[in-house]
Parts: sequence; structure tokens; C-alpha cells
Amino acid sequence: MGRVTARKPVLRIRDGLHTTRPDTLTVEEPLELRVGGRPLTITMRTPGHDFDLAAGFLVGEGVIHEAGDVAGIRYCAGATDDGGNTYNIVDVALAPGVAAPDASLERNFYTTSSCGLCGKASLDAVRTRTTWPVADAPLRISPDTLATLPEQLRAAQRVFDRTGGLHAAALFTPGGELVCLREDVGRHNAVDKAIGHALRGGLLPLRDTVLMVSGRASFELVQKAVMAGIPMLAAVSAPSSLAVDLADDAGLTLVGFLRGSSMNVYSHPERLAPLPVAP
Amino acid sequence: MGRVTARKPVLRIRDGLHTTRPDTLTVEEPLELRVGGRPLTITMRTPGHDFDLAAGFLVGEGVIHEAGDVAGIRYCAGATDDGGNTYNIVDVALAPGVAAPDASLERNFYTTSSCGLCGKASLDAVRTRTTWPVADAPLRISPDTLATLPEQLRAAQRVFDRTGGLHAAALFTPGGELVCLREDVGRHNAVDKAIGHALRGGLLPLRDTVLMVSGRASFELVQKAVMAGIPMLAAVSAPSSLAVDLADDAGLTLVGFLRGSSMNVYSHPERLAPLPVAP
Repeated sequence: MGRVTARKPVLRIRDGLHTTRPDTLTVEEPLELRVGGRPLTITMRTPGHDFDLAAGFLVGEGVIHEAGDVAGIRYCAGATDDGGNTYNIVDVALAPGVAAPDASLERNFYTTSSCGLCGKASLDAVRTRTTWPVADAPLRISPDTLATLPEQLRAAQRVFDRTGGLHAAALFTPGGELVCLREDVGRHNAVDKAIGHALRGGLLPLRDTVLMVSGRASFELVQKAVMAGIPMLAAVSAPSSLAVDLADDAGLTLVGFLRGSSMNVYSHPERLAPLPVAP
Repeated sequence: MGRVTARKPVLRIRDGLHTTRPDTLTVEEPLELRVGGRPLTITMRTPGHDFDLAAGFLVGEGVIHEAGDVAGIRYCAGATDDGGNTYNIVDVALAPGVAAPDASLERNFYTTSSCGLCGKASLDAVRTRTTWPVADAPLRISPDTLATLPEQLRAAQRVFDRTGGLHAAALFTPGGELVCLREDVGRHNAVDKAIGHALRGGLLPLRDTVLMVSGRASFELVQKAVMAGIPMLAAVSAPSSLAVDLADDAGLTLVGFLRGSSMNVYSHPERLAPLPVAP
């Protein structure tokens, strides 16, 4: 359960010398997500906060939208050779009336039969699945407050300093207070865990929340934010072109290269207030 | 086709001032992979080298093993509103006698019915799918030569300096010469593109080749290396625990934190020769 790190021997080569010593690594294990007993997907993740991960993943897929959509989440008791539970299979029971996800290959909801797959089709697909609008979310945050988030993120990443191998995702209030931090070997999993935690706490839609991630901002991360009703995503590194297109289309404020007091705002800068002066 | 970067306006905030200017972003677009006309998967990728990506993905899945397994690869002519080709759908025709992949959810070959999903089961699954053994590959490389790879990788990343948003994967000879570099918004895609390029050039198995990646080393990246017969994977950042377990099990040399003249060797250090002295 708390298997976040593991110790392994490593041969270290430094400045023409070598030594052998134990090293701390981030644990990666498969997690199978089932819904109502039916397998939906397998992801490689860092164990811990698995119920958050399951819930957050289903928010991103448009299956659930609020805490009441989930009747229960449990580990599937299992069969290792000695009959023990691997804690690597999670089953989500949906509340009555909540439709089970389509477990087919077409579950990403692209209409591929027309052979017209493109970025615009991807934006259209997100638009049809969105439950919570973010375009009219009144959130405002000052650049000075935003500038404090990366350091807060790093300070809260207890594990990070020991392995250097974990991605982080965190939810912040407009005042810059940390609501929730989650880590994982996978970027998407860290975001799913943070959003799943919020869902299970009855906090969706997250219309007054900033999502901060330690790496880049891809289309999929913007999509996950939009599906949770989050109006602002801030990333330490670069966004992709399609991430910017989706943010622009959905009304989400996308901030990249947030480092110290400098940042790039790629869409909907009206939520950054007060802006510093123009030169 | 050459849509690797796109220009977007960005609001830059620096030191209490803001300016608006165009910024260069990495392009991200969906790619649907079909085999014999049947959809297999969709991935978000940076356009370019799409046939390499398709071929490399199928190597990693254990579907194809050498150039002769592929009868042809083409873009699926398509239907945007004006009938144009989106160049986002690739169809791979397999050679006669090559079995088509299982397009079901179980295509990752985990046996999930027993509820025993765990890291060891993941290693077992790779072992049963491997065509090329890597444990007996005679490749040797000196730490001094390995130390030159990260700088060569960066120098070859023409696009990187403009966007800061691309992952890279490269194949090197034991003498440290670059064979092939591929980039993508996705870590896995960059590796698939490099391996697919090698397959299409008749170079598989890559038993005398080092794979270098710009980021971390996950289980999946080690798996892709093993499936292509590559005996050494070097990464700029940390490996996960399961990446080390798989490398150890498969006989692959896994190097992490390769930065300047320092590196950590997590498995099969015998391929690092000559080793520097012990203190």
C-alpha cells in the first residue's frame, strides 16, 4: 500500500571512480481498473491513492461527475500464488442510473469511421463530453500568487527529493493555498489522483481552483482539467499546440513555463489579475 | 507533414512586465493506427515519421519483428469536410502469414482473470512475447563514450531549442555514433519512431545498439527496447523500480541519470567497459 519507493543496488560512476550503493527508486506497478466488475483499462502507476486514481480517471472519461455517482470503490481480493491481495485491481461500483463506460476500443469517443481524424475533431469530442462549463468561471489570481505555486509544489513533494522520478499535480485556491497534492510515475495519473480526491470529497466542479503540474501541458491534461470544471492549468514546462487550442476553445486559462516570477499565458489571460504593467 | 511546430500568440510575464509576442509550440495531433484496415489504437503524437511510429509501435506489441513482416504502410485517404487527407490515419498491411494483433482490450496480454496482476506478472508477459534475446548480446561501451551521448542528443535536437517541449530518443553505436534520432511530444512515441526506423531499414534486432532517451526510464520503455533486441537503455533521468526489475530479468543494461561524466548503472554493468577504478 505505501509502496511508493523501493531500494535497489546501483553502480554509481562519478569523475572516473565507481562505487556500489543502495539507491531509492519510485515504484511502478500495474493497476487494473474495473467498473462494475468489468475490466476497463490498465495503467502503470505508483501505488497509493488508488481509489482517487480510479475516480479521477472516470471523471476524465466523462463517466462520473460528482461524488454521488460512485456507490463504492474496493480492491478486488485476489489470487497471487499464496492467495494474497496484490492491491493492483480496483473495482468501482457506479450509483444506480449512472451509465457504465463503453469498454470497447472506441471508448475515446472519436468518430473514426469518416477517416477525418484531426485536432479539430479532438476538440469537438471534448466539447460534447463536458459536463461543467469553465468558460464563465469567475476565478481570478494574481501573477504574484501564481509565482509562488511551483516552489510550494516542490516543497510538498516529500518523495521527489529521494528519487527524482515522480510527476506531481496539485490543486490550489486562488489565494495560493494548497488543497491537494498527488504524485505518480505517470503525469496523467498524478492529475487523475488529484481530481479523484476532489470528487470523493464533494468538491466538483472545481470552478475556483488552479491545477498545477510539474511537467508539460498536453492535450490530455487540459482535457482532464476541463472535465473536472477547472478553469486554470499551470505547468512548469511547455504546452503543445493542441493543448493551447483546447484551452482556448473551452475557456480555460493555460499558463506554461511557470518558473519564479516569469510565465507564459497561452489562453484567456483575463483570469490573471492584476496584470503587471506593459513596458 | 512537416507540421512539427506551430506559432501562437503568448502573453509573457517577466519581472513585473508583460508583453505579447508569437511563441513556437510543438504540434500535437491524434494518430490512428490501423492494421489491415482495422483500427488498433489512437495516440497523440507530433506529426512526422508516422510510418516509423506505426512500425515501431507494432514491434513493441510483438506483432512484427523484421522489415519483411510489413507488406506496406500508407496514409488512409480521408474525409475532412473538403475531402482532404488529414494525414492522421496510418494503415499497416502485414505480410502474408503474419498474425494480426488482437484488437481487444486484452491486447496487452495480461492474464487478468486470476486477479493476480502484479509486477512479476508484467515481467512474465514480456518474457513470453520476446523474439530477440538480449541477455547474450556482446555489446560493450566505455563510460567515457556513454558520457558523450546526452550532449550529442541535445545537439541533434534541432526542434528542441525552439519549443522546449519535445522528448527525444536516439540509437547509437558502441563507438558513440548517432544512428537515428526521433522526437515527439510523447516519450513512448519517440522510442517507437526510432525503433520503427531501424526495422524499416532492416536493422532489427538491434543487438549492437544503445537506446538513449531524454527523460525517465519507465517499464514500458525498457519493454520496447527488449522487444527490439536492444541490450542497453540510457536515460537522462530516473528509472522506475519495475523498469529496473525488467532490465535485470531480460539481461538489459539500464543506465539512469546520465549527465556529463556521471551515471547510475542499475542492471548488468558488465557491458560498461572499461570501468573506471574503485576508490
